[in-house]
Amino acid sequence: MAATALDSAIFRDIFSTEAMRRVFSDEQRTAFYLDIEAALARVQARLGIIPQEAADEIVKQCRIENIDMARLKQQTERIGYPILGVVQQIVGLCRDGLGEWCHWGATTQDITDTATVMQIRAALDLVEQDMAAISKSFADLAGRYRDTPMAGRSNLQQAVPITFGFKMASLLAAMQRHRERLAQMRPRVLVGEFAGAAGTLSSLGKDGLKVQAELCKELGLGQPEIAWHTVRDRIAEVGCFLGILTGTLGKLSMDVKLMMQTEVAEVFEPFHEGRGSSSTMPQKRNPISCLYIHSTAALVRQNAAALMEAAVADHERSTGPWEIEWIALPEVFLLASGCLAQSRDMVAGLQVDEKRMRANLDLTGGLVVTEAVMMGLAPHLGRQRAHDVIYDISRKVVETGKPLLDLLAGDPEISPHVTRKELEAMVDPGGYVGLAGEMVDRVLALEK
Amino acid sequence: MAATALDSAIFRDIFSTEAMRRVFSDEQRTAFYLDIEAALARVQARLGIIPQEAADEIVKQCRIENIDMARLKQQTERIGYPILGVVQQIVGLCRDGLGEWCHWGATTQDITDTATVMQIRAALDLVEQDMAAISKSFADLAGRYRDTPMAGRSNLQQAVPITFGFKMASLLAAMQRHRERLAQMRPRVLVGEFAGAAGTLSSLGKDGLKVQAELCKELGLGQPEIAWHTVRDRIAEVGCFLGILTGTLGKLSMDVKLMMQTEVAEVFEPFHEGRGSSSTMPQKRNPISCLYIHSTAALVRQNAAALMEAAVADHERSTGPWEIEWIALPEVFLLASGCLAQSRDMVAGLQVDEKRMRANLDLTGGLVVTEAVMMGLAPHLGRQRAHDVIYDISRKVVETGKPLLDLLAGDPEISPHVTRKELEAMVDPGGYVGLAGEMVDRVLALEK
Amino acid sequence: MAATALDSAIFRDIFSTEAMRRVFSDEQRTAFYLDIEAALARVQARLGIIPQEAADEIVKQCRIENIDMARLKQQTERIGYPILGVVQQIVGLCRDGLGEWCHWGATTQDITDTATVMQIRAALDLVEQDMAAISKSFADLAGRYRDTPMAGRSNLQQAVPITFGFKMASLLAAMQRHRERLAQMRPRVLVGEFAGAAGTLSSLGKDGLKVQAELCKELGLGQPEIAWHTVRDRIAEVGCFLGILTGTLGKLSMDVKLMMQTEVAEVFEPFHEGRGSSSTMPQKRNPISCLYIHSTAALVRQNAAALMEAAVADHERSTGPWEIEWIALPEVFLLASGCLAQSRDMVAGLQVDEKRMRANLDLTGGLVVTEAVMMGLAPHLGRQRAHDVIYDISRKVVETGKPLLDLLAGDPEISPHVTRKELEAMVDPGGYVGLAGEMVDRVLALEK
Amino acid sequence: MAATALDSAIFRDIFSTEAMRRVFSDEQRTAFYLDIEAALARVQARLGIIPQEAADEIVKQCRIENIDMARLKQQTERIGYPILGVVQQIVGLCRDGLGEWCHWGATTQDITDTATVMQIRAALDLVEQDMAAISKSFADLAGRYRDTPMAGRSNLQQAVPITFGFKMASLLAAMQRHRERLAQMRPRVLVGEFAGAAGTLSSLGKDGLKVQAELCKELGLGQPEIAWHTVRDRIAEVGCFLGILTGTLGKLSMDVKLMMQTEVAEVFEPFHEGRGSSSTMPQKRNPISCLYIHSTAALVRQNAAALMEAAVADHERSTGPWEIEWIALPEVFLLASGCLAQSRDMVAGLQVDEKRMRANLDLTGGLVVTEAVMMGLAPHLGRQRAHDVIYDISRKVVETGKPLLDLLAGDPEISPHVTRKELEAMVDPGGYVGLAGEMVDRVLALEK
Repeated sequence: MAATALDSAIFRDIFSTEAMRRVFSDEQRTAFYLDIEAALARVQARLGIIPQEAADEIVKQCRIENIDMARLKQQTERIGYPILGVVQQIVGLCRDGLGEWCHWGATTQDITDTATVMQIRAALDLVEQDMAAISKSFADLAGRYRDTPMAGRSNLQQAVPITFGFKMASLLAAMQRHRERLAQMRPRVLVGEFAGAAGTLSSLGKDGLKVQAELCKELGLGQPEIAWHTVRDRIAEVGCFLGILTGTLGKLSMDVKLMMQTEVAEVFEPFHEGRGSSSTMPQKRNPISCLYIHSTAALVRQNAAALMEAAVADHERSTGPWEIEWIALPEVFLLASGCLAQSRDMVAGLQVDEKRMRANLDLTGGLVVTEAVMMGLAPHLGRQRAHDVIYDISRKVVETGKPLLDLLAGDPEISPHVTRKELEAMVDPGGYVGLAGEMVDRVLALEK
Repeated sequence: MAATALDSAIFRDIFSTEAMRRVFSDEQRTAFYLDIEAALARVQARLGIIPQEAADEIVKQCRIENIDMARLKQQTERIGYPILGVVQQIVGLCRDGLGEWCHWGATTQDITDTATVMQIRAALDLVEQDMAAISKSFADLAGRYRDTPMAGRSNLQQAVPITFGFKMASLLAAMQRHRERLAQMRPRVLVGEFAGAAGTLSSLGKDGLKVQAELCKELGLGQPEIAWHTVRDRIAEVGCFLGILTGTLGKLSMDVKLMMQTEVAEVFEPFHEGRGSSSTMPQKRNPISCLYIHSTAALVRQNAAALMEAAVADHERSTGPWEIEWIALPEVFLLASGCLAQSRDMVAGLQVDEKRMRANLDLTGGLVVTEAVMMGLAPHLGRQRAHDVIYDISRKVVETGKPLLDLLAGDPEISPHVTRKELEAMVDPGGYVGLAGEMVDRVLALEK
Repeated sequence: MAATALDSAIFRDIFSTEAMRRVFSDEQRTAFYLDIEAALARVQARLGIIPQEAADEIVKQCRIENIDMARLKQQTERIGYPILGVVQQIVGLCRDGLGEWCHWGATTQDITDTATVMQIRAALDLVEQDMAAISKSFADLAGRYRDTPMAGRSNLQQAVPITFGFKMASLLAAMQRHRERLAQMRPRVLVGEFAGAAGTLSSLGKDGLKVQAELCKELGLGQPEIAWHTVRDRIAEVGCFLGILTGTLGKLSMDVKLMMQTEVAEVFEPFHEGRGSSSTMPQKRNPISCLYIHSTAALVRQNAAALMEAAVADHERSTGPWEIEWIALPEVFLLASGCLAQSRDMVAGLQVDEKRMRANLDLTGGLVVTEAVMMGLAPHLGRQRAHDVIYDISRKVVETGKPLLDLLAGDPEISPHVTRKELEAMVDPGGYVGLAGEMVDRVLALEK
Repeated sequence: MAATALDSAIFRDIFSTEAMRRVFSDEQRTAFYLDIEAALARVQARLGIIPQEAADEIVKQCRIENIDMARLKQQTERIGYPILGVVQQIVGLCRDGLGEWCHWGATTQDITDTATVMQIRAALDLVEQDMAAISKSFADLAGRYRDTPMAGRSNLQQAVPITFGFKMASLLAAMQRHRERLAQMRPRVLVGEFAGAAGTLSSLGKDGLKVQAELCKELGLGQPEIAWHTVRDRIAEVGCFLGILTGTLGKLSMDVKLMMQTEVAEVFEPFHEGRGSSSTMPQKRNPISCLYIHSTAALVRQNAAALMEAAVADHERSTGPWEIEWIALPEVFLLASGCLAQSRDMVAGLQVDEKRMRANLDLTGGLVVTEAVMMGLAPHLGRQRAHDVIYDISRKVVETGKPLLDLLAGDPEISPHVTRKELEAMVDPGGYVGLAGEMVDRVLALEK
């Protein structure tokens, strides 16, 4: 009986993905605890801190199947943290009291923080896969529609033309930056925690830093310069990264849903039987993925703000701020996974109606390329004068419905300088896409 | 395999309550859908819009046990909304095609919005119960410790004394305002939705408003003046109410955790065996409930902000903003339930160390009541002069460690005006709690 | 040299209003401080607590012209709060040391909180004026266009028709609820603060509550049950109210900017010479007010979240959370004032193109009223069967471009039951606006 | 008459800095516009696109003194953007119509975005200076107090000892990561914008990218791969960077204000005459800087969330989301400047009471080092048994007040294994700071 949308039997695969839920499941989190306790035992035996026999027994017992989750729930509610409960269960399972050497010199937050980083690592791998797939689709679309003219829209008004490939390439460029951010963030964030009750490794004497280094190596994580139990910029950074990333996807969904409008109809989410249909309006083609992308992105950024607040921790173990992370970090990844998965599916199968793009471009009877005319006339009339003349003629087009070309050709200030033929070329929207193609190429070149 | 903290097998009863999870469970939400479809059929048969036989059959089938949740998940993922899937299942169950009359004239969002309101109603009832219990505990504490002096603290510095009852009464007064807010909000928010595809009830001809009125009545909800599919101030208001309410609980937890500090030790969360113990520091008494209150309150307000954003809906069925509510509304209630439950338990069993309160009050050697001395000397020296004299003497107390009383009695400006005996009375912190008791009485009087 | 957009010499009247800025100006805030100090002196003289002569002199000096703002800045930076500086300046101005009786028994936060409430009162009056004007415009539009058909849009797809009056009335209904919220909130929030250093009125002996009552009365504010220096639900509530209110305006701006799209062109912001023009695209008609409404509303809700966080105050004078209010409360009102002013202007002069609305409604060749056909056929075919038949025909319309009416009339399942004439009536979008008009009337009736 | 706290004549130097306000002032922003227009003219003349004479005249006129700000305000309010107004004023100033060549091929947002990036560059330089100063102070404190023992605190309970240098070093490590983030972010963010009305550079023919490259070079900015008018991850990233950075400062202020508590009194903000004094409580030592750090950090993160929302832009010029940046980007930098300046002053003059730290460490009679005893006994009793024994003895200490050493030495399970002398060494808190010093050294080594 799940109560959140993210775990709901009905909605979970809409707003998140199974792979991401697995990373943040009780089982996986607890399994990471056990991986860490086992690695710690191995390392400490190797360094001669605990008996090899104890390590062997501990490693043997540190399996998720051995954990009684119902009992762990009770222990966690009583103590406030799940680690002591896990350790007590392992201790109970080990023969001959060898479990006493389990969790040697560690503190609760050492284990939970390191497990959190392992979750982040696994989760970022999933994120990266989706990012790669989305980038590939953007690259395909950018290449395929490099020269397909459509209306550029400024303030939701048709402005000068662009190409659809240009639109896709500008999103691809953002994905390239996100990939760079991810690459830079990883070594900073994927760092273990092993520092003891107040971060000083006091319980392990001189061996502490050696254990720390070996443990991190064993787990494939970086070694921290110093304990970070209450210095949480790393976690906040992860949340912000996802907030910035999903902001780009939010922009994607905004554009797609606007282009899917009945009155625009240039681009469509991939068709699946029944998908986006309505119980009462059979003609509709709803932007279903866009809904989910938009909403999950909105919640990612609020959770990112919460993670920034969580950084305001107190002293050596924080009193409330840390628990914000317990809730918000899984949420922010789950929401991002849904946002990415919906985006990935959508751009992989995006349907593009080039004809309708062209038809919409012609809607204003050439008004979208008045800039072209203005730039063409500027050398003759001066830019300001050209602007004013075109502005007046454009108003006349809007008011009278007369063709722009006719009004231009008949204007006494214009006709001395350019022929109707030249004007005709100027008002062809398809001929005024500037360097859209070159910019697409610049971005695609970075994909090699 | 839950992935959110709120549904986690380990953490769920820490950050939310079972009762609240039940309200937002897939089962309950779907059951509300069925309640509404059944009520609609009853009402429409009564009004002669659909055959009574059809209504009887529909009502008979509208039971949660009849719904195949796995199939509903698939239908929902395909269509984007769960209602059509539910209706199709019911239609399939009804004999003789009578199910065709199910969902007559309704649109998807009519059912989901009304179900959401029914969830809100049930959830607010739970919230109200906890509010009442917390208020009662505050009232008990305010009465019991009406005259128990303790240090008032301003900017975390000991200021003039207060009483512990005064502290509790000021929180109780906030709860009284929250109860007023809830009472005012309920009739505004607990309103049904039944308006058809674009809100005009077009599918039901002239009978539409009659059906709407009867349906709302049948469900015990208010009738809306007009469709509110995309005018969502009600939902945002609910989120904000919970944000404001849990803000008060956040303040409570802040004070308790500060008072539980090793160096202060005036108040403690109720003792449960093992509760708040540490795997390495047996002497600690951790403010466990405070952690959860603080963190859930932080996330309630971010989700409230998301619900305000969700109000920026487009046209007659919003394209993304609505889905923010699907995620954030359950979250905000679940988090609030955890926040309330932890607060309720904590204040019900709060342990108060009156002796330590008094001892802390004496820590400054009377400096906390320099205001009393200043006010006592002001008629003689003028307020500003009294302030300056006391300020200097206080600094001397801090620097030399000499008793305040001695320095006061020995001061040449002071000694002509007041005796040592009078000064002695002035510097007794317990004697300077002002009208704390009277204010407690004023608040308690409102509880009758 | 202003640095914020809200105080910018260029942008300030875009994002806020002069009237609101005046309420939150340094001068007005300081003037309120002086009003309170003067009122306090008057009240305390009347009650025999301070000499009448002192009160007279204090009242005489408590004029904003007397305050040296540059010196006050220095005092504030040194002390951390502005009140002591103001009091010192007044004390310095009063003859014969009578100023010593100024601020008698008060604490810094008594004055600032009460001044804040006076700012809120003045600011809410401004808000209410704009709300009334906007409501009036909505009512006018709702009445004038009660029966003007246009496309209802669901998920940005044309759904069944509505009327433009219906759209306006649904926003008007939200304004009615906002007015109710405001009326309920005022007495709860417009309450004075006068409680002394830790809230116990200890410095005034038994007279404290009498002074408090009289002072609040003198200032036209309610008397609090108990000090609320660190119980800040009132302030958070004000922020949330503005967040919910501007959410409705955000929805308004969303709809208007969508309707202003080149491809839709149904509604326009009022025309002002040059307004919304572009330096390069003279044909554009930009939704300028919508930009500002959208952006200010977005920031109002984030500041509202900050005000909820500010409620997590500590002990008797909070250490940081209070200062959040110092920044966020002016911001939230300034932003709301810009949002309201832009909305007010926009709806007062909104231009409606009824012909284009109708033309857009016909874009789908009747597909928007397939629901009408479906409901008309349901009694004959059963609802589900009718749905499926219409769904197939609609797809054919989309794919082949053939007229809906022809395909309906030629369908072998349909033709036995309804004539082409009847079908013709069914597919007229203008005839299928349901009870839109009645709902408009219901809302307008509440405006009387 | 400023209305925001950030521009307030009273509060502005508390919540922001003059240097940062200058960067975001109307004058500086407009001056950047002029710098860009001048650079554009120079570049275009050099490339033979506009006459050299025109460029000379334009460059000559592009001075901030030439701009009539009042007129610019009116122009901006009419048009919605300030650029056209600036250009018109320059055009009007240029002799012989040469101004017509000003702004050649540019669009409004090209200039505003590039100016915004120039503001960000200047602002980040200020941020970096403060970061360096704060890092230096942290390094000094970490070195000076490398071995000064104090209580580590977990959940606000005294846990095992740390050193004050360790506490400072953990914050320094965060500053090191922030500096790395800044270095990585700069080349990604400090990129010009020059792309024309819809981003395709259509108005400049084949020369467009050459102009873009030269213009960016002229201004010392990177060249973008493609237009980014509506792909705003860069701006959101800047906001998040400041949110994460100020989160660390928020943690600093949290610790300082807790350590300044009357009952703790270990560390103090630098003493300035009158600073942190109260109008009524002369003995107080208020954490004034902490207040401002805490509150500005809280608002930075909400504005960062708003900037993430602003990334959800539409099409080629966004309709509202962009304007969120106009307000939030200055705010986020202004708030951060205040947060940094207060932090910088505070840590530069932080007063540390080593004696009090030691005294507080002894408060629990050795209970804070029960971990040491437990670890010392574990080899003899087993860790779990050692834990249980110590746990019971600790409780006895708390309940009876008897010295820990006596109870340990007298315990029948313990005494056979360790002597009283050995126990004495174990319970010395100063001797149990683990590898705090080594960790300090690790962090300081990175400062070289």
